[in-house]
Amino acid sequence: MSKYKLIMLRHGEGAWNKENRFCSWVDQKLNNEGMEEARNCGKQLKALNFEFDLVFTSILNRSIHTAWLILEEMGQEWVPVESSWRLNERHYGALIGLNREKMALNHGEEQVKLWRRSYSVTPPPIEESHPYYHEIYNDRRYKVCDVPADQLPRSESLKDVLERLLPFWNERIAPEVLSGKTILISAHGNSSRALLKHLEDFSKHQEPLKGEPGLPECQPCPRVSESVGISDEDIINITLPTGVPILLELDENLHAAGPHQFLGDQEAVQAAIRKVEDQGKVKRAEK
Amino acid sequence: MSKYKLIMLRHGEGAWNKENRFCSWVDQKLNNEGMEEARNCGKQLKALNFEFDLVFTSILNRSIHTAWLILEEMGQEWVPVESSWRLNERHYGALIGLNREKMALNHGEEQVKLWRRSYSVTPPPIEESHPYYHEIYNDRRYKVCDVPADQLPRSESLKDVLERLLPFWNERIAPEVLSGKTILISAHGNSSRALLKHLEDFSKHQEPLKGEPGLPECQPCPRVSESVGISDEDIINITLPTGVPILLELDENLHAAGPHQFLGDQEAVQAAIRKVEDQGKVKRAEK
Repeated sequence: MSKYKLIMLRHGEGAWNKENRFCSWVDQKLNNEGMEEARNCGKQLKALNFEFDLVFTSILNRSIHTAWLILEEMGQEWVPVESSWRLNERHYGALIGLNREKMALNHGEEQVKLWRRSYSVTPPPIEESHPYYHEIYNDRRYKVCDVPADQLPRSESLKDVLERLLPFWNERIAPEVLSGKTILISAHGNSSRALLKHLEDFSKHQEPLKGEPGLPECQPCPRVSESVGISDEDIINITLPTGVPILLELDENLHAAGPHQFLGDQEAVQAAIRKVEDQGKVKRAEK
Repeated sequence: MSKYKLIMLRHGEGAWNKENRFCSWVDQKLNNEGMEEARNCGKQLKALNFEFDLVFTSILNRSIHTAWLILEEMGQEWVPVESSWRLNERHYGALIGLNREKMALNHGEEQVKLWRRSYSVTPPPIEESHPYYHEIYNDRRYKVCDVPADQLPRSESLKDVLERLLPFWNERIAPEVLSGKTILISAHGNSSRALLKHLEDFSKHQEPLKGEPGLPECQPCPRVSESVGISDEDIINITLPTGVPILLELDENLHAAGPHQFLGDQEAVQAAIRKVEDQGKVKRAEK
């Protein structure tokens, strides 16, 4: 039975979404459409009378800016916002900055889909010679926000994202949900997919699962691989549209009480999902 | 000798500044000029290479929005922002919503200056019949942000503002300054004046002063009345312009190492100060 409600969100569109490039840990800003998507999200959540008590974001500006625009639209600017690198987008390694469609032409649509959507495939790691390497690893935010240098990834599978995200879910977010707070998580396509997979996995377990921090990086998280809600194979077919609020109802153990729901006009939601899916395909004219 | 630097700021202009009304605890938004002032502040601070580690605001949206616009302009959106009611604007009691110039016509410019700028004069308290009473006291933010209902003021002198602000300075902000963090405080005309008075008072003392939380509300804070840097009498002549960064250099005991400085073009700063001072005067044509 549903006891808690959680709103998750993939930030609105940024400049590199438009150019169809892997943005990942590069700190691209929202474009005008992305800002509009965020404002519309705020309008929807306001119309549904959501009153947030706490907002979580990554430390990438597009997820923070999306949260700000939503809060502004709702007249809830004063709601505390807490940001963590553990909610950052998946680190796409050497693929960062590359065009998805060109990648599909060079490596095939299937390979690109595997890199983008599979659970445990890790793209090639970023090297120091990569054009965005220094921008990412010399960024002051990772020092100020106390990210241990040896934990900064060089590339991540979705499973890796879940493993670095879980300590933050368990230690910061879950206790606040359990205390009855209404929470918004403004994150990214793949950090949201990872969390969704985790919470919907929970729905089939008798005991709440706890991911511990400090699991060795290459060790599969045993609880995650027992997935039955959204399986490792099924997650490849789950695509989250940008700027659409996702409602997740949780039971008293923070297991998903049912499948996640996209709020708003369902036809528009489906069109937004198709748009994201098409990013990794070769356009017909060029085939 | 200066050891720490602190940037304080009075938020940009809001709709009621334009209409020359006492805004105080009514949650008015920034107007377009106010947003522009905030962005210019961000540009200035960026040009001066400020790198913030932490930002404090009140829980009124104009101070938060000002901080957001500054951080956005500086590309430092990820810097943590912490909001507290203790940085709120002074509670103007029964004067809230009233036009300053009309008040000067009815009560004389001197009385309005006393209400606006003196240290210990408290305006008449707000009553339940006041048009903004319920909007303020039923606002969800004061519950969510754990403000004890009996601490919510009904009217405040500048001295009252300092007394409710000091626990937050002492417990939250001062330790962060002492740890070497670069701090921005985006607050209001009178919460900034109160803090400035307190810190510049410090410059004449041998020992750092500590305001304790929980002093009885009507008890004068003994340390505050010993002021010598900006005296109780002098504070009446200190006016802070909107949207101008104020640099305060502090020594190892967090005493002001010198007078505060307004950053930016000094002629523009003086014009901005005159604009605020003129708000409480009767226009010549109407005299």
